[in-house]
Amino acid sequence: MKDIILKGANYIGGNPSKNGDDIFYAINPRTGEKSELAYYEATKDEIGKACKLAHSAFNILRKTTNEERAKFLEIVSEEIMNLGDQLLEIADWEVALGLQRFTGERVRTCNQIKMFADYIREGKHEETIIDEEDPQTKLKRMLIPIGPVAVFGVSNFPLAFGVCGGDTVSALAAGCPVVAKGHPSHPQTSELFAVAMNKAIERAGFPKGTFSLLQGVKNITGKNLVLHSAIKAVGFTGSRGGGDSLFDLAASRTNPIPVYAEMGSINPVFITKSAINTRADKMAQEFADSITLGVGQFCTKPGVFFLPAFEGSIRFIKKIAEIMNGKKNQSLLNGNVYKSLVKMMEETQSLEGVELLIGGKIADQNFAFQNTLLKTDLSTYLKEERLKMEYFGPLALFVECDSQDQYLEVVDQLDGQLTGTIYLEKEDYKAIKPLFNCLKEKVGRLIINGVPTGVKVSPAMNHGGPYPATTAVRTTSVGMTAIQRFLRPICYQNVPEDLLCDNTK
Amino acid sequence: MKDIILKGANYIGGNPSKNGDDIFYAINPRTGEKSELAYYEATKDEIGKACKLAHSAFNILRKTTNEERAKFLEIVSEEIMNLGDQLLEIADWEVALGLQRFTGERVRTCNQIKMFADYIREGKHEETIIDEEDPQTKLKRMLIPIGPVAVFGVSNFPLAFGVCGGDTVSALAAGCPVVAKGHPSHPQTSELFAVAMNKAIERAGFPKGTFSLLQGVKNITGKNLVLHSAIKAVGFTGSRGGGDSLFDLAASRTNPIPVYAEMGSINPVFITKSAINTRADKMAQEFADSITLGVGQFCTKPGVFFLPAFEGSIRFIKKIAEIMNGKKNQSLLNGNVYKSLVKMMEETQSLEGVELLIGGKIADQNFAFQNTLLKTDLSTYLKEERLKMEYFGPLALFVECDSQDQYLEVVDQLDGQLTGTIYLEKEDYKAIKPLFNCLKEKVGRLIINGVPTGVKVSPAMNHGGPYPATTAVRTTSVGMTAIQRFLRPICYQNVPEDLLCDNTK
Repeated sequence: MKDIILKGANYIGGNPSKNGDDIFYAINPRTGEKSELAYYEATKDEIGKACKLAHSAFNILRKTTNEERAKFLEIVSEEIMNLGDQLLEIADWEVALGLQRFTGERVRTCNQIKMFADYIREGKHEETIIDEEDPQTKLKRMLIPIGPVAVFGVSNFPLAFGVCGGDTVSALAAGCPVVAKGHPSHPQTSELFAVAMNKAIERAGFPKGTFSLLQGVKNITGKNLVLHSAIKAVGFTGSRGGGDSLFDLAASRTNPIPVYAEMGSINPVFITKSAINTRADKMAQEFADSITLGVGQFCTKPGVFFLPAFEGSIRFIKKIAEIMNGKKNQSLLNGNVYKSLVKMMEETQSLEGVELLIGGKIADQNFAFQNTLLKTDLSTYLKEERLKMEYFGPLALFVECDSQDQYLEVVDQLDGQLTGTIYLEKEDYKAIKPLFNCLKEKVGRLIINGVPTGVKVSPAMNHGGPYPATTAVRTTSVGMTAIQRFLRPICYQNVPEDLLCDNTK
Repeated sequence: MKDIILKGANYIGGNPSKNGDDIFYAINPRTGEKSELAYYEATKDEIGKACKLAHSAFNILRKTTNEERAKFLEIVSEEIMNLGDQLLEIADWEVALGLQRFTGERVRTCNQIKMFADYIREGKHEETIIDEEDPQTKLKRMLIPIGPVAVFGVSNFPLAFGVCGGDTVSALAAGCPVVAKGHPSHPQTSELFAVAMNKAIERAGFPKGTFSLLQGVKNITGKNLVLHSAIKAVGFTGSRGGGDSLFDLAASRTNPIPVYAEMGSINPVFITKSAINTRADKMAQEFADSITLGVGQFCTKPGVFFLPAFEGSIRFIKKIAEIMNGKKNQSLLNGNVYKSLVKMMEETQSLEGVELLIGGKIADQNFAFQNTLLKTDLSTYLKEERLKMEYFGPLALFVECDSQDQYLEVVDQLDGQLTGTIYLEKEDYKAIKPLFNCLKEKVGRLIINGVPTGVKVSPAMNHGGPYPATTAVRTTSVGMTAIQRFLRPICYQNVPEDLLCDNTK
């Protein structure tokens, strides 16, 4: 297969567009090398054009059948596979997560597309309810697409949560055109996806405005997208600052729109004494692997572990440290992630009562960071706000507690989280029940005896949670019900089938 | 049955409370007479106490079974009936909608409570999804209550949308305690509901913080409620200004929360020439009744009619005018509604191109307003923003169009609406299809050949719509799915049944 020749462009309704004056480059985090190709920041005009095309496309897309959209999604998945190894190699060049990881992520990306295709084929997403008893008032309620959607791709999952990732695919499945803003860490990967998407749109005979890609590094580009009147909802995965600012912006519009921002989490883990006594070694391996997975750049990375202060815990922590020390230090996604982690570490190490167990220093490679473990006591943890923030990288904090009863105090102060985890033995059930019940109120997913990393794409998954984990506690960004974000109810009263069906369109 | 002796109080977790210095009175709109009893505006302390009690109550309520809550709701309905005729008489004294209307509204109020009881008994509202294929990752996703809810009662439905109305009942059904803010137009009616609710709470053995009632006339009272950290969602029905300001306030919180504000609508009606030719008389009666129902103070009142300019329309409009002229002029809900309608009418009558057909002047009774019809042409309508606003009262506007094709232009400019209606004959289906498809995008309920007033409480109802009809297009405030507003998903991963069930609570 011949490699696609990249253009450094935005793609506005299928057409490459480089009208702007501002350029930026992809940077290889392993080497610091700049991409040969310059990328053109989308202009306000280009954004407006993409949104207007999406608006027109919506008038066609909303009349497509579930079967037509399902077939289109399957073609999208085929065209992503048709990108071949070029996709994996470019993604690895841009964010350094390794070819093996991207091979797996591509499978996930295509599988989730096919799962949404199957899901809408069944029509369950329409959640149709019919009242017929009263012949005077026959009501049919169903969900219909909300309108054009703005999607912000992430840095840490360029495939599965990139410009053709879960947000885009669930919006398209719902019948909503997408204007995607690619993450500036991997513009080449985003461009490849746009090429695949455009081929699929052409093959399926879908309108060109079904998908546009905007490139850019500046905040104003995303802002102009969210403020465009044609946009009816926003999907975002990224930092707290980014999500908060899009949420505020969308609320300030003349017509406010929903922002589904998934903003990460510290994913606390609570461990009982019995669990440590029974299977410290197995857990140590699981935790070390989970903390360092994807160089610690998962939004579900377990960031803080609460455990009882006893000798078993000391041995247990030592074991985790040993395993993590044996793992290679790897480059972070990009310079911003690196700088922000270094700054946070400097601040944290200067705190009284916080002990550095391993790592904490910059590794010798470009943008690489040592696998790091910190330890503190409960009172220091409760006092220091800095310790409750997300450290995006291969780092975790242990908090020693005098007794498991103190876990309740921790949960009471906890912000909203994507996940919460409890490791325990059967004998703990009764004592841990109050913790379980309280933790439930703070999380989107509650895990027993398993690590939070690994967010399965399945009907029952919930990847969401109370603020600040997300800005929309009632929704998930992973799993089949993610489609609900881009649908809204309508009730047809006494509407004859001849008008409802689209054979006169 | 002995009448309940009212206290002029707030009810904080069951206890009457009058700690404030500010007082206000109920006013009989028919006579201008002030209530003997003074009502005490809730203080910031009282609001805080109610919210803290709701927070504590939530820790118990969220563990109740569906059956326990269903039984509780049935008791609430019984206790509302136990208020007897005092409820109807006081409501009529306060907002002058008539005893007959309140007798019907009480049936609706109690029926919707019993329907929610049946609905949660079935457990369908939990929307449980279970993935079991993968023994390593057993996922159970379900909806759980969101937390304490603030409910703002309305003026125009003191029973069905009052402090024990649809919002409160769907929140309680979900397992959420409610802090209700009563509308200042009917503080006595609200107090009666609080008495009934408190009896039900006691009979069911539910925690006292399950329900509190705040009285008040000042904006700051509602603001302090929405800003309280214990409140996790807001239900509101009322004016655009009120809904917008609560939405902005909730978005500005450190922890933003959803605001489900239903803010009314002009509910456009589009009529074809064939429909007028075929059944002008039947439609004239339906429209005259619908415009004047509840003295025109329904959020689904048809406010604007688009019809083709031909002789049939002139006769048709004349017929509606005749029927409406024959109807008694009645008092509006309160002085604010009256003043605002008078002001809007003055502004409208001064517009060039707008013709007053009937009414338009103040009637002789207190706060009464003449049944009013206005007429204009399409270009005036499209030009004048004033004509696109909601007139809350017995008033409607006819817009004559040169051809039905112009309806599309109207819909294109239309704001989001609770309802949209088309009157047509079978022969119009093909020609009207584009209008149907465009109108669908602007409304929460689309009606063929029927008036929009009359919002049935049923599984398939949707009472919502795109902004500015509501601030939450994905939700409904009437019908069984209204409960979704107060639920949010959680995913349990590998959680053993022993921990999930509450037998160790």
